[in-house]
Amino acid sequence: MSEFDDAISLRRDGEGRYLGTLTDAWGIGEAVNGGLLMALSTQAVIDVVPAHHPHPLTWSGVFLSPGGPGEITAEPTVLRTGRSMSTAQVIVRQGEMERFRALLTMGDVSGHSEPVRKQTPRPRITPVDQCVSSGDAPPSALTKSELLQRFDMRLDPETAGWALGQPSGNGEMRGWIRFADGREPDALSLLAFLDAFPPVAFDLGSVGWVPTIEFTGYVRAVPAPGWLAIRIRTSTVTGNLLEEDAELWDSTGRLVAQSRQLASARFAD
Amino acid sequence: MSEFDDAISLRRDGEGRYLGTLTDAWGIGEAVNGGLLMALSTQAVIDVVPAHHPHPLTWSGVFLSPGGPGEITAEPTVLRTGRSMSTAQVIVRQGEMERFRALLTMGDVSGHSEPVRKQTPRPRITPVDQCVSSGDAPPSALTKSELLQRFDMRLDPETAGWALGQPSGNGEMRGWIRFADGREPDALSLLAFLDAFPPVAFDLGSVGWVPTIEFTGYVRAVPAPGWLAIRIRTSTVTGNLLEEDAELWDSTGRLVAQSRQLASARFAD
Repeated sequence: MSEFDDAISLRRDGEGRYLGTLTDAWGIGEAVNGGLLMALSTQAVIDVVPAHHPHPLTWSGVFLSPGGPGEITAEPTVLRTGRSMSTAQVIVRQGEMERFRALLTMGDVSGHSEPVRKQTPRPRITPVDQCVSSGDAPPSALTKSELLQRFDMRLDPETAGWALGQPSGNGEMRGWIRFADGREPDALSLLAFLDAFPPVAFDLGSVGWVPTIEFTGYVRAVPAPGWLAIRIRTSTVTGNLLEEDAELWDSTGRLVAQSRQLASARFAD
Repeated sequence: MSEFDDAISLRRDGEGRYLGTLTDAWGIGEAVNGGLLMALSTQAVIDVVPAHHPHPLTWSGVFLSPGGPGEITAEPTVLRTGRSMSTAQVIVRQGEMERFRALLTMGDVSGHSEPVRKQTPRPRITPVDQCVSSGDAPPSALTKSELLQRFDMRLDPETAGWALGQPSGNGEMRGWIRFADGREPDALSLLAFLDAFPPVAFDLGSVGWVPTIEFTGYVRAVPAPGWLAIRIRTSTVTGNLLEEDAELWDSTGRLVAQSRQLASARFAD
């Protein structure tokens, strides 16, 4: 079993809830990575919708309090079951504290991904072996970020200045990502990949934790095996709020997932 | 009272629910405009969160069944109240049928909109008086679309070919929008403006109703009075699904709202 599948595995209690355990193996600072939590919550939903709706087509949620190591409970509710899609809600708690809740559209993404009438082409990204590896991150960035051991992340050197204290101010990062243990990407794990890279706010000079307020991800196709290409960008930064858009392309160059989140960042001024 | 404020006005019942009435004055085909419903649902949330959190910062919802003329009920629940933001859920029903549910982040957007560190500049759009007015739409497009009487919409002729049966295939529309009765835009009504324009799928040759599956909108600033500039685009169209991104700029050129929706369109092939 892969590290990812192990981390999102759930057992059912007798009352329609699903129980899991968070470890700091997926930690980022004091919190557990949001992308892992999104995938975990989707696991619970997969179990309550029809088997022919196995993939998250849309995942939208609000984050109420940061998740930490320990027991976690996911409570899914089916809102509607249609012919080609089901809609569900999931509430995730630790103890009495609600961590987040989300609304999901489930379906078979392979039934919605052909033909490709239009797609965002994969941008030019420096080849993997010439990128900056997350393993090369400065020690300060690695402190308490076990997450960097779970993902193999490669940052295009053209967008890596921030890691050396020289943010470009462009608000963009490009690179490559895969699981460190070799597990291949699938529709479910795309949710985790969408929220695994460092916050794009770092390229604008922000430091420290960048909590997500709202996150919406769309899965557009089942990814082929291999590296995923990723681009994250922000277009509008006002006060301490910014939106961050992420896009993922599989090894064939196909756009397989896209997301937007509103996040809160700290800036020096 | 303006047409918009009248349409979203609610009265409280004794059990934490808010009652309103939909009329076909905001109809589009057989359904009532989604943007109006989003604003109406937000009205109910405004009444249950602290008064210093009066604006929707984020609105994310899933649409379960189309709303039609008649009574409507909104049931808001506060999930968390923080210092600068509150989080809430709202469930909207007609009779026993759930129409949609949404997760909202509420706050005072004017406290999150300065300074402007980065923003998407308003694109070049043909001046209002040289645009195609919604009043000039072919009679077929006006059939049962009372909505076109509520909004004054002007479409840039460069992106209006689809209305004459010549979609460009680019997947983009630009133009201007305001309320027909002169009501000025505010933070709440931006939600309605984000979903008022014709579906961008029409520019790709799609015809007929384009139901929204999921919609997420962010309000980034309180708009100045006057016309709003709008751009809607899609980048990835697969099978019958497409994402539609909308952006609104106020009369000073400021980016005031942005949204993304996943929609289902019918194509000829």
